[in-house]
Amino acid sequence: MAVAYQAPESLPAVAGVRLGVAEAAIKKPGRRDLLVIELAPGTRVAGVFTQNSFAAAPVLLCREVLASGTAVRALVVNSGNANAATGQGGLDDARAVSAAVAAAIGCEAGQVLPFSTGVIGQRLPVERMVAAAPKAVADLSADGWIAAMLAIMTTDTVGKGASRKVATSQGEVTVTGIAKGVGMIHPNMATMLGYVGTDARLSQAATEQALKTAVSRSFNCVTVDGDTSTNDSCVLFATGQVGTREIETGDADYALVAEAIEAVCRELAHAIVRDGEGATKFVTIEVSQARSEAEARQVALAVAHSPLVKTALFASDANWGRIVMAVGKSGVAVDPAKVDLWLDEVCLLRGGQPHPDYREERGSAVVAQPEFAIRIALGSGDASATVWTCDFSYDYVKINAEYRT
Amino acid sequence: MAVAYQAPESLPAVAGVRLGVAEAAIKKPGRRDLLVIELAPGTRVAGVFTQNSFAAAPVLLCREVLASGTAVRALVVNSGNANAATGQGGLDDARAVSAAVAAAIGCEAGQVLPFSTGVIGQRLPVERMVAAAPKAVADLSADGWIAAMLAIMTTDTVGKGASRKVATSQGEVTVTGIAKGVGMIHPNMATMLGYVGTDARLSQAATEQALKTAVSRSFNCVTVDGDTSTNDSCVLFATGQVGTREIETGDADYALVAEAIEAVCRELAHAIVRDGEGATKFVTIEVSQARSEAEARQVALAVAHSPLVKTALFASDANWGRIVMAVGKSGVAVDPAKVDLWLDEVCLLRGGQPHPDYREERGSAVVAQPEFAIRIALGSGDASATVWTCDFSYDYVKINAEYRT
Repeated sequence: MAVAYQAPESLPAVAGVRLGVAEAAIKKPGRRDLLVIELAPGTRVAGVFTQNSFAAAPVLLCREVLASGTAVRALVVNSGNANAATGQGGLDDARAVSAAVAAAIGCEAGQVLPFSTGVIGQRLPVERMVAAAPKAVADLSADGWIAAMLAIMTTDTVGKGASRKVATSQGEVTVTGIAKGVGMIHPNMATMLGYVGTDARLSQAATEQALKTAVSRSFNCVTVDGDTSTNDSCVLFATGQVGTREIETGDADYALVAEAIEAVCRELAHAIVRDGEGATKFVTIEVSQARSEAEARQVALAVAHSPLVKTALFASDANWGRIVMAVGKSGVAVDPAKVDLWLDEVCLLRGGQPHPDYREERGSAVVAQPEFAIRIALGSGDASATVWTCDFSYDYVKINAEYRT
Repeated sequence: MAVAYQAPESLPAVAGVRLGVAEAAIKKPGRRDLLVIELAPGTRVAGVFTQNSFAAAPVLLCREVLASGTAVRALVVNSGNANAATGQGGLDDARAVSAAVAAAIGCEAGQVLPFSTGVIGQRLPVERMVAAAPKAVADLSADGWIAAMLAIMTTDTVGKGASRKVATSQGEVTVTGIAKGVGMIHPNMATMLGYVGTDARLSQAATEQALKTAVSRSFNCVTVDGDTSTNDSCVLFATGQVGTREIETGDADYALVAEAIEAVCRELAHAIVRDGEGATKFVTIEVSQARSEAEARQVALAVAHSPLVKTALFASDANWGRIVMAVGKSGVAVDPAKVDLWLDEVCLLRGGQPHPDYREERGSAVVAQPEFAIRIALGSGDASATVWTCDFSYDYVKINAEYRT
């Protein structure tokens, strides 16, 4: 049960993007687990991928295709099998599936980006996927976003989608995105996948910049358990169906479209945390007065990753001792005598010591809420960063230990 | 209930070391919570302390005393209150307690090292502690190790002590140590405290080197939850009661005594993991074929800290996908195609892919044991490191969330 989040019932189409799904019975039958996203000719595509050294076969192929500058015409995504730790065979499997999709839509195999999520260490059921590929292509529709959102889910309890419309000098632009992921916590590793499309006519450089910036402020600012999947991928495609002039990063329209893209990514990233397995709380961690944004982020993540902080949040325990412990162990040089700490608007610490007016019940009231902010001022600079996380519940262990009652 | 560990019923005395305890009702009455350790004149003392920026008042004073080169004559340790995040007042409190101990044994306040563990953000009950100090001094005895071991416990379920005797060219040397700690997981932060005494005549340099080396291979190689207390401290004192010549780091006797000190520290460190709150398994993580010991250690700790790996271990799930994920996200450059993985003697992965002979039931049989090893060969060098950790159980969250049934 996600924290204050419900899946969208519909998502606006993006001119130049068609989506289709089919059942390939990849992990088990009875589910549409294969997704094809077709992109209009001329679509600009950018992608960011996991930093994990054990990057899965499809991630390696995506990097290869994008580096080659080949015009991407389609994406193929499967749930139920991550095609990770599968070696050369896994690369061959992914190429075979891409080739089947390419044949069905009429392009080169090298113009298709493959993605996988699910069980690792097992080969893909290539025959079933190759057979299902034409069915997914036959299902292509501009209104396929919701079906696509559902097809890529693994342990997600809700589908995740978001959309924005923004008026530019060249007309109204739509940004629609879908994502899946509940933290790196599926027994066989879950994965964050994100696909964001816009009909804006972004240049290649603008497409890459917009994705990089949006991800750094959204997907890279959320954490459920601090682990990193072998398959994490996020792709932005700009079909250029709206307008006639390419939008460069310096243009006024760029700021408008980039902001919409960031808003969609942020909403999707928040949905992943809200759906974090076992999550009962959605917590914003704001670190300010740091020497640099990197240091602020490092401190915020140290707090967000601490099992002690997360279990206290689950217990609605305003345990500031654990928060200062996490700040102190973050690796960032911190002067305790300058550190202030708030829970929402309640000040707990000033200058590293308990605030004289602080009363336990005031802090407890804040952390008893399903959503609140931990705000830390380091007093050493003017940089800041925000991270979003969930609590660490009884059910997290229960689910991840596959506990059976 | 600690994993395969029982507290010692007796601990050998160390010539030149006397220990005494008293009740100061620091957190609550009914418990001997104040410990004084008296050291014979001429005793060499070395200490290592937490790297947490929020180091507690007693840690700051210990660093000050040891840096000054003053001859240390006594240690005073209290449980029930960490004297952390207490500012200048906390420093004054610690000095007052040290002064009371100094007066009772007849030395300068500056010759006493103070230590605290327990609740943070609260001032010490100085009056009660000052009143109890002479009682603890009156209780001093060479046979006080067990009482001392019990006095410093907080959330520990068992006392932790270890001892070794080793024959040197100058006679038989005794090394006896006590420790407390169950991971950084007490609702108000637990702490690792370790005190190791020997009657060997180590030089100051040898004392410092022996402690540094022993801690780096023992206390710094165990992790329960990856958190770092504000009060962690480990002290080695060498009374020099055995022998007439000072032992320097180059001497043959140094190797013998240093090995005994390391063995005592390792046994104490393992006891802390075995008593890790909620722990049901004691797991050794060996990383070999790394470019450097630091990289091997970084990979081992990434595996040891992963909530996914730890919850799988609790479930007796041989989830190698989570292990390779943790190796891949460790930050160390790893070539998956060179990585081999074993559980004890069972090979799961060769060259980053599932071993053809591996069967799930063989891995499950290993991780079902209360003690086993995860062995990772990186294939990129000849350096190695070993880390010890416990699993992440249902009870960890239960305990840390103060879950009430």
